[in-house]
Amino acid sequence: MDKKHINVGLIGYGTVGKGVVRILEENKKIILRKVGKSIRVKSICDLNPIDRPSLYVKNFRDIIKDPEIDLVIELIGGYEPARSIILEALQAGKNVVTANKAVLAKYWDQIFTTAQNCQKSIYYEASVGGVIPVVQGLSEGLASEEILEIKGILNGTTNFILSEMTKNGASYEDALKSAQKAGFAESNPTFDVDGIDTANKLAILASLAWGGWIKVKNIAVKGIAGLNIEDVLIAQDFGYDIKLIGSAQKTKDGLDLSVQPCLVKHDHAFATVENEYNAVMITGKDSGDVLFYGKGAGQGPAASAVVSDIINLSEFIVTNTAGIVPDVIYDMKKKIKILPAGRSKAPYYLRLSVVDKPGVLSKISGILGKYKVSIASLAQPDVSNDDYVRIIIITHDTHRENLEKALKQIDATKSIIKSKTVKLKIEL
Amino acid sequence: MDKKHINVGLIGYGTVGKGVVRILEENKKIILRKVGKSIRVKSICDLNPIDRPSLYVKNFRDIIKDPEIDLVIELIGGYEPARSIILEALQAGKNVVTANKAVLAKYWDQIFTTAQNCQKSIYYEASVGGVIPVVQGLSEGLASEEILEIKGILNGTTNFILSEMTKNGASYEDALKSAQKAGFAESNPTFDVDGIDTANKLAILASLAWGGWIKVKNIAVKGIAGLNIEDVLIAQDFGYDIKLIGSAQKTKDGLDLSVQPCLVKHDHAFATVENEYNAVMITGKDSGDVLFYGKGAGQGPAASAVVSDIINLSEFIVTNTAGIVPDVIYDMKKKIKILPAGRSKAPYYLRLSVVDKPGVLSKISGILGKYKVSIASLAQPDVSNDDYVRIIIITHDTHRENLEKALKQIDATKSIIKSKTVKLKIEL
Repeated sequence: MDKKHINVGLIGYGTVGKGVVRILEENKKIILRKVGKSIRVKSICDLNPIDRPSLYVKNFRDIIKDPEIDLVIELIGGYEPARSIILEALQAGKNVVTANKAVLAKYWDQIFTTAQNCQKSIYYEASVGGVIPVVQGLSEGLASEEILEIKGILNGTTNFILSEMTKNGASYEDALKSAQKAGFAESNPTFDVDGIDTANKLAILASLAWGGWIKVKNIAVKGIAGLNIEDVLIAQDFGYDIKLIGSAQKTKDGLDLSVQPCLVKHDHAFATVENEYNAVMITGKDSGDVLFYGKGAGQGPAASAVVSDIINLSEFIVTNTAGIVPDVIYDMKKKIKILPAGRSKAPYYLRLSVVDKPGVLSKISGILGKYKVSIASLAQPDVSNDDYVRIIIITHDTHRENLEKALKQIDATKSIIKSKTVKLKIEL
Repeated sequence: MDKKHINVGLIGYGTVGKGVVRILEENKKIILRKVGKSIRVKSICDLNPIDRPSLYVKNFRDIIKDPEIDLVIELIGGYEPARSIILEALQAGKNVVTANKAVLAKYWDQIFTTAQNCQKSIYYEASVGGVIPVVQGLSEGLASEEILEIKGILNGTTNFILSEMTKNGASYEDALKSAQKAGFAESNPTFDVDGIDTANKLAILASLAWGGWIKVKNIAVKGIAGLNIEDVLIAQDFGYDIKLIGSAQKTKDGLDLSVQPCLVKHDHAFATVENEYNAVMITGKDSGDVLFYGKGAGQGPAASAVVSDIINLSEFIVTNTAGIVPDVIYDMKKKIKILPAGRSKAPYYLRLSVVDKPGVLSKISGILGKYKVSIASLAQPDVSNDDYVRIIIITHDTHRENLEKALKQIDATKSIIKSKTVKLKIEL
């Protein structure tokens, strides 16, 4: 180890990478005081040459093989070569910091087993909730808790889009364009708007909370792509906002895991989470509700979380203790029971578009009743067009599979239904 | 070290101590999985004999001198013998967990210097914000940040009292009785209601944030004792709640430190923090606002935080790495400039009780103007008694010393003033 510096190799020099380099420079004094050594960016690897030619290396293996480098920062995202970078870095005796939720959620087992076998650390606070220190909050701050529930607004892009739709009455397409313009959505926003990014983050939090590996495939995922502005506006009238919520709940029949756009009451803690902000509510048996809130996207917040990881890990590197206490402790053989998506219970918002003739309501309520879907309230807002009528139904708690069967039958009744019924979960 | 257990000695067996023992038993499996060894309460010291006679020791030094004990938990509170327990335990080679904000704030320097010299750890997450992991959130989660501001509702007792006053229109005295009945206020509530407890917690957070030792004497402290229900109700009418807020703000002339009851707008993040809940908002240069929220009082939350500390510290004890990385890193010689209390700038709420005659308003506004206190709005609510009139003034930003001088002169004008003017800071 270099006597004066912690030497860092940075792989991926996009917005966040540039932010990391900037904060390391701007906060030199704070860092020196905390770590006892300065942190030096020794090499930067990127697909394209960069504005600091003296630091540039073309091949990430030049960083991994450099004996002077103590810490590898992986900021390229995606599955490959991110996975290879992380695994090879650990195997080469480097500690790692990453913000990559996709690779962690998919290769959780392999990554943390490798880290443990190599006695090296991998820090990943920036992978969930942007600047919010929720990884540590959950795994250390709430270490003693039997976790009952985790709910979160975990994706800044979709939350920005939903805020735009709510505040400005913008269509989904226009709101997406605004998010792209503001730098909060990528040109290909699929990962965000389809809920995959949220699912990756939820998988990480759930794996930490319940001490096993919760796979993304166990999460029922629905994104916000194509969400109709009509539902946002009707929800507003009924006292709700629509938010994309990742939810993991312990039930006696297994973990109930989902990502979906949900209605939350205006006085819900999540209703005031706007634009690029994220929030995570963790409920423990003794702790009760604990809420974390902060910016989930943007250069400053993301890079800040990465640099905090670099500082915390460097304190251990300086004292030769990094990787001795494993970062993620779990039993690989532990089977965690997952509740089948259909057995998930919740109240729902339904918007039906029906023909305007007598007997329609009785037919609909008959089918709902047959599948044990009970109506809590029903309204016919007067925004209807000439040739059809909207019916808004709020249900009581219902099993998802029952509701889906009922809606399938309702939507198949072409004599009364004008277009596919919209259903959205209500988050209490 | 015992091969199978981490042996814990518990000093102080009140509500929180009992909760710690309960959670250690109930969550045995979770703990064993995380620590790799079980955590055993080997001895308990209390003033009075306890319900577990086989564990009881009368003298805390029997715990400190016990070579089998790895970890000393100090839960007696107050300055002495808490300070001696902590220092002697560290010197005897024990690691320490404490929830004691008073002793930490007062002996910060001595405690952390001793810990560092002895290469032992002291964890104290439960000392601030109850179950909220804000100590770690600030010192590690936001390690990279230049901290600009910390604001918090840090005392569950006073927040419970203020909630009672706000929700039920209860007088301060009645609300205090309710808090005592609910177990959230002690029979002698001075530390809480006079703001001292909040000041201790703010001193800890500020010391962590700015890397020096911020002493309680540098904080301008005003509690809620004697707060008039009239002001709570008038504030409500004006769209504000009253909260006891600890605030530390970086200004170019030094740190602005205060604890005082403040008006916060109904849509402020703190307005929805009710009953025994706490909240802390930390603002960093790159992070922006980060909010932590959770229960600040009660057995479950407090004991949960202590047990989380025990678990996290035990992971290091098991691997013989506890105390190697210092828990608090700061420069003892670092001088932190403190803004004199009078130079603190904020808008204020004023309630004047004046005689009902012409010329009064002009006199008051004349005096305020003389001291550069500018009026943002003024109202005369019609709740007045026969013989005097209330005037409510909201000021623009004003230096506290100017306002105090103006009010001194106003209150001395006996021909117009019926009773001492009430002033409360407005928190934006």
